[in-house]
Amino acid sequence: MLGAVEAGGTKYICAVGTEDGKIMERVQIPTEYPGKTIPKVIEFFQKHQIDALGIGSFGPLDLNGQSDTYGYIKATPKPGWVNFPLVETMKKALNVPVAFDTDVNAAAWGEFLFGAGKGLGICLYMTVGTGIGAGAVVDGKILHGLSHPEMGHIFLRRHPQDEFEGFCPYHVDCLEGLAAGPAIEKRWGIEGAGLPENHPAWEIEAHYLAQALLQYILILSPEKIIMGGGVMKQPHLLQRIHREMERLSKGFLTLPQPENYIVSPTLGDDSGILGALMMAKDIVYGK
Amino acid sequence: MLGAVEAGGTKYICAVGTEDGKIMERVQIPTEYPGKTIPKVIEFFQKHQIDALGIGSFGPLDLNGQSDTYGYIKATPKPGWVNFPLVETMKKALNVPVAFDTDVNAAAWGEFLFGAGKGLGICLYMTVGTGIGAGAVVDGKILHGLSHPEMGHIFLRRHPQDEFEGFCPYHVDCLEGLAAGPAIEKRWGIEGAGLPENHPAWEIEAHYLAQALLQYILILSPEKIIMGGGVMKQPHLLQRIHREMERLSKGFLTLPQPENYIVSPTLGDDSGILGALMMAKDIVYGK
Ligand SMILES: Nc1ncnc2c1ncn2[C@@H]1O[C@H](COP(=O)(O)OP(=O)(O)O)[C@@H](O)[C@H]1O
Ligand SMILES: Nc1ncnc2c1ncn2[C@@H]1O[C@H](COP(=O)(O)OP(=O)(O)O)[C@@H](O)[C@H]1O
Ligand SMILES: [Zn+2]
Ligand SMILES: [Zn+2]
Repeated sequence: MLGAVEAGGTKYICAVGTEDGKIMERVQIPTEYPGKTIPKVIEFFQKHQIDALGIGSFGPLDLNGQSDTYGYIKATPKPGWVNFPLVETMKKALNVPVAFDTDVNAAAWGEFLFGAGKGLGICLYMTVGTGIGAGAVVDGKILHGLSHPEMGHIFLRRHPQDEFEGFCPYHVDCLEGLAAGPAIEKRWGIEGAGLPENHPAWEIEAHYLAQALLQYILILSPEKIIMGGGVMKQPHLLQRIHREMERLSKGFLTLPQPENYIVSPTLGDDSGILGALMMAKDIVYGK
Repeated sequence: MLGAVEAGGTKYICAVGTEDGKIMERVQIPTEYPGKTIPKVIEFFQKHQIDALGIGSFGPLDLNGQSDTYGYIKATPKPGWVNFPLVETMKKALNVPVAFDTDVNAAAWGEFLFGAGKGLGICLYMTVGTGIGAGAVVDGKILHGLSHPEMGHIFLRRHPQDEFEGFCPYHVDCLEGLAAGPAIEKRWGIEGAGLPENHPAWEIEAHYLAQALLQYILILSPEKIIMGGGVMKQPHLLQRIHREMERLSKGFLTLPQPENYIVSPTLGDDSGILGALMMAKDIVYGK
């Protein structure tokens, strides 16, 4: 049996499953302080006999195997989690090898293996939730370089009708600061889920997301872009992004039909946990 | 013997060399209309016995092996070259296999094999000349996805003191439109080479280039960035970019010392032609 964790800002999803991607049992544990959350995570896995654990976590993370702080969560605004040694803690408690990557890299891996990115040379997974992030699989490997990408923090040009200042603690009005769920809530004084379909919020949102996708395309040239996260649950938003992408790329880039190019995750909310499970598989069985 | 072409907007460089990257002979041919330039290119290679030809060319290019127009130069503003079947023409004339990629991908390949990018997991080569472009090598392969990247055409935020409108025929004020050599010339009424070191032009230039590098880093996470092209011949410009990168990334990204991270090409002006030569090598000897 293999173990998988999707560590999110609001909840930890823990699961056990098989090497062909079948989840046998799962639990959700609220993300509070590490001292409250982590013992419950450990308890879940101690009830099962796992051979390896894969973790996809909110970042930023130290993924540098040579570093003294490999496996740590780094400078997150989430109280209590700064410099938390997640890999070390789990390894010690469970005595199994641990694979570690960002939540979006795990999700990209899941969609590449079982979902919308199957068989592609380059696929990109983006989440638009409490934060914004993206991960890519290039030639059958999760993309890592100097570190993991930080695609949620690129700079954008302002929508001319948008006067919200932005809420990113690092950059104020980067992509995340202007377009993540909390930006919508702070801009309009009400959560995105409560805004009607014809509200101007969605035109601004689609504009920022399309602008970001265009930068990703110009730099990375993905063959498919998969968009998940809470904000993307707005059923009309993907279509608005399609239209805005066509407008922004016209006359310069020849893109596939947007309906086939910018898509929802085939695995629904399971891209990340399945990706993490397959990261555990790679430890035990190799690639 | 192997053949290599670096097809630029102002000149074609043609060379023959060996599989270990030694250039035996080279010529420069001005880029005029294809009917004038190409016969001279062919004539040069007909004087030599080559087994394969590698071409790095200005773009945009059709690199899709499945396409009817594979090997064509596409919608370039350069008169006469739109839809020119470069690969087909050279194959027919010389009767050898041809490897084809963008000029910047060839340069990235050259620097990865012999230069500043040697042995790295991800390295990026950027040129700032008549146009702006960049290419990357990821895990020992030139990065291709849907197509080749078009990193020169990303959107930037305006420098507050810059009132030049931009000259990109597609986007007006994208990176290339604001920061390529002709943008400097049009903004100040004089070529970059003639502007003194303390001219405000260079602060604006460094700001735009650093902003672009930051987007590349957030999305692709390269381990090294190599900057070539005519504009980078300004000896103080690289240092200005280093300082501006530090300012823009501070408190968020931990980057290597900028002097070791953002560097000049080790191969000088030969990155592209050597990369093209090695593309020819890969046809004959495999990788
Ligand atoms: N139907 C919806 N429409 C718009 N926004 C939504 C919707 N559902 C959730 N959100 C927003 O998505 C964010 C939560 O994202 P989610 O991906 O579920 O969690 P997290 O990013 O914390 O893992 C919140 O800001 C919430 O307001
Ligand atoms: N020393 C210099 N300082 C600033 N700009 C320069 C310098 N030398 C050349 N340039 C500019 O670089 C551009 C040419 O770039 P180059 O890379 O040589 O050619 P191309 O891009 O056509 O292959 C021109 O716009 C020119 O003005
Ligand atoms: Zn930010
Ligand atoms: Zn442009």
